[in-house]
Amino acid sequence: MACNCERKERLAKLISDIRMDKKITYMDYNATTPVLTESIGAFERSCRQNWGNPSNCHTTGIKAWEELEKNREAISKYFNTKKENIFFCSSGSEAIFAGIHAILNSNTFFISTVIEHSSVLKNIIALPKEQYHLLKVSGNGMINIEEFSKVLEKNKEKNIVFIYSPVNHETGALAPIKEIYRKAKEYNALIFLDAVQAAARLSVIEWQPFCDIFTLSSHKLYAPKGCGVLALTKEYSPGVSSADKVSKTLSELNPFRFGGNQESGLFPGTENTPAISAFAKSIEYLELNLKSEIARLKTLTDEGLKILQSLPYKVVLESPENRAAGILCLSLPEVKEIEQFMDFIYLKGICISRFSACSDNEKAASEILTAMGCPLERAEKSIRISTGIYSKRDDYYALADAIKEYFKQ
Amino acid sequence: MACNCERKERLAKLISDIRMDKKITYMDYNATTPVLTESIGAFERSCRQNWGNPSNCHTTGIKAWEELEKNREAISKYFNTKKENIFFCSSGSEAIFAGIHAILNSNTFFISTVIEHSSVLKNIIALPKEQYHLLKVSGNGMINIEEFSKVLEKNKEKNIVFIYSPVNHETGALAPIKEIYRKAKEYNALIFLDAVQAAARLSVIEWQPFCDIFTLSSHKLYAPKGCGVLALTKEYSPGVSSADKVSKTLSELNPFRFGGNQESGLFPGTENTPAISAFAKSIEYLELNLKSEIARLKTLTDEGLKILQSLPYKVVLESPENRAAGILCLSLPEVKEIEQFMDFIYLKGICISRFSACSDNEKAASEILTAMGCPLERAEKSIRISTGIYSKRDDYYALADAIKEYFKQ
Repeated sequence: MACNCERKERLAKLISDIRMDKKITYMDYNATTPVLTESIGAFERSCRQNWGNPSNCHTTGIKAWEELEKNREAISKYFNTKKENIFFCSSGSEAIFAGIHAILNSNTFFISTVIEHSSVLKNIIALPKEQYHLLKVSGNGMINIEEFSKVLEKNKEKNIVFIYSPVNHETGALAPIKEIYRKAKEYNALIFLDAVQAAARLSVIEWQPFCDIFTLSSHKLYAPKGCGVLALTKEYSPGVSSADKVSKTLSELNPFRFGGNQESGLFPGTENTPAISAFAKSIEYLELNLKSEIARLKTLTDEGLKILQSLPYKVVLESPENRAAGILCLSLPEVKEIEQFMDFIYLKGICISRFSACSDNEKAASEILTAMGCPLERAEKSIRISTGIYSKRDDYYALADAIKEYFKQ
Repeated sequence: MACNCERKERLAKLISDIRMDKKITYMDYNATTPVLTESIGAFERSCRQNWGNPSNCHTTGIKAWEELEKNREAISKYFNTKKENIFFCSSGSEAIFAGIHAILNSNTFFISTVIEHSSVLKNIIALPKEQYHLLKVSGNGMINIEEFSKVLEKNKEKNIVFIYSPVNHETGALAPIKEIYRKAKEYNALIFLDAVQAAARLSVIEWQPFCDIFTLSSHKLYAPKGCGVLALTKEYSPGVSSADKVSKTLSELNPFRFGGNQESGLFPGTENTPAISAFAKSIEYLELNLKSEIARLKTLTDEGLKILQSLPYKVVLESPENRAAGILCLSLPEVKEIEQFMDFIYLKGICISRFSACSDNEKAASEILTAMGCPLERAEKSIRISTGIYSKRDDYYALADAIKEYFKQ
């Protein structure tokens, strides 16, 4: 359990009192997405028809295995890689940890940034101090390529891994993906993308060619929770020349725990075949719709920003200009107490957030905005609005109305 | 992917040729169970109505959180413990590893047995040699209590943890649960039960009071895959007297990875709320039916054994007398090539296995039978039959017929 149970209990009581009258406005797609009916159907079908253990060789096992491999194939195709490069696990957080561990040895050196999700950041800072460096970011949420170069140069004898998210989960800030890749490859460094948010916000072609490893999470992509992916972009065979540090590292992935040989031994335990089927179904949807959805969300987010900024209160855009469609980080410096403000908004049935749902202190200043040099009086009063396939202009009006009501009371 | 893909591809081809005509006889409940319709319904409802991220404080998050906590409460009640003692994760394998890691420090000493599931055994033998001891077993699959005492005595200055499964996954052998507990407690040792199989085969009262930690897996209990549980039997508060080694150990559980604070930080990442809801639904079913099911399976297994032993071929019972209802390990020493035999049985639509589905070399001798002193000519020709709630006498007749056909051809 997260440790903000008391607050949740209080809100739960209030919400249940008013729930019946309220329309829910969901604007927190970065925390989790609604589940597509087709994905639920795929899960259900899998449980009814192919519920076997895919490690078994009998009919029931083989049917589950066939379904698993068919979906592995489909998912690998969408992400422009090979079936053999896709390893299924249970969540994005697990995939990131497993990926870090898989390539970690005493000669590995991790570079990351101070604005990553806790599932990256906390596992990196748990490493010995001499094995990592966190890059600072400037006001637009960008790393400084010169600082990056310096750190690469200083550690060039090591196996360098740069791990980052191309789309910041709180501000939507877009990293200079290609530039980072080019610079890293000058040093034969490996690029590990936390693509949990990027996969929902960018076309695969915009990020996949510029990394060696990436991770995904089903529930940020309109599928049920329960499926994470650790993936390689190229196939690395054992026994490659030791001169090519990247190939060598990726041909010897180490599991962090032991047991059965599932997922090449990287994730021992029975594969969650129905969750994988449901995820594959969502991928089918994204294949058809993501591109047009991104375009629609871009317009919608611009309109939404205008709606919110036309309020007679100070609404500061904290997301940089160069940001992913659908994500807006704003600050409301005139708000007095942010937790009280959030409670007010919540009780209007509006679902926004401040940070990643994995952070549990909504009173604090945004660490990401602070790292970007945002003054405390704004970083303490920031909100994150993240929209998706069911979002519409009315959602922004509902939020604007709620903010108006808050200031009026 | 497990590494027996070629065999699976060959079998898949053959099965698809004959699939249409064949009735499937499923007798591998220890590998995975069919999913209850009610559990699928609970999963689906959760995805449609309470798909939020339970870490969020907005309405959508709170609804998911309420569902999560309601199910945590229900599951904890069935397993006779407190809500605070239940930590959800994704699988039994993950729960076991997390549990081992949670209590591991330089003064921890693990005792286990040579017949445990690979998810226990492989993680134990990955520890430094001076931190564990594996007990041998006798012909009935029992540990020797005197050897156990000796190992306890020798390591009494350390924090001893005995980790084992009360029901062997291959033979069904029942461990002397109470005797082990009494002996361990003389040394203030901690008992960690891999209850993945036991929860389906024994009433909770028969094993839960005799351990400190236990682990569960949803898909062995008629729920979909995707929910594992790490649980404590008592509540351990921080800051207890250091004299009580067990309490001290359990009040300071360490996560093996970092990120969000979900599940008290033990399993960072969004909880799989629909899978937990589905699991709680299966638990409701077990609460009503497990006791009578165990009784029914006992009679059925005895009848099944008679049916198989009345065949005009040598069928040796390898499971000990003292075994859980529904599990039979047999050997067929007259079989010439075991893999060929298994293929024949599979192509008759009969789903049995040899070992845990997490093992992938069906040609090998059973390591568990070998450890029990079973001669190689039988350990190489063993099969595991495990039945459950949909099993009936006809299943054994179908298996007997297939064996007859095999020997005739």
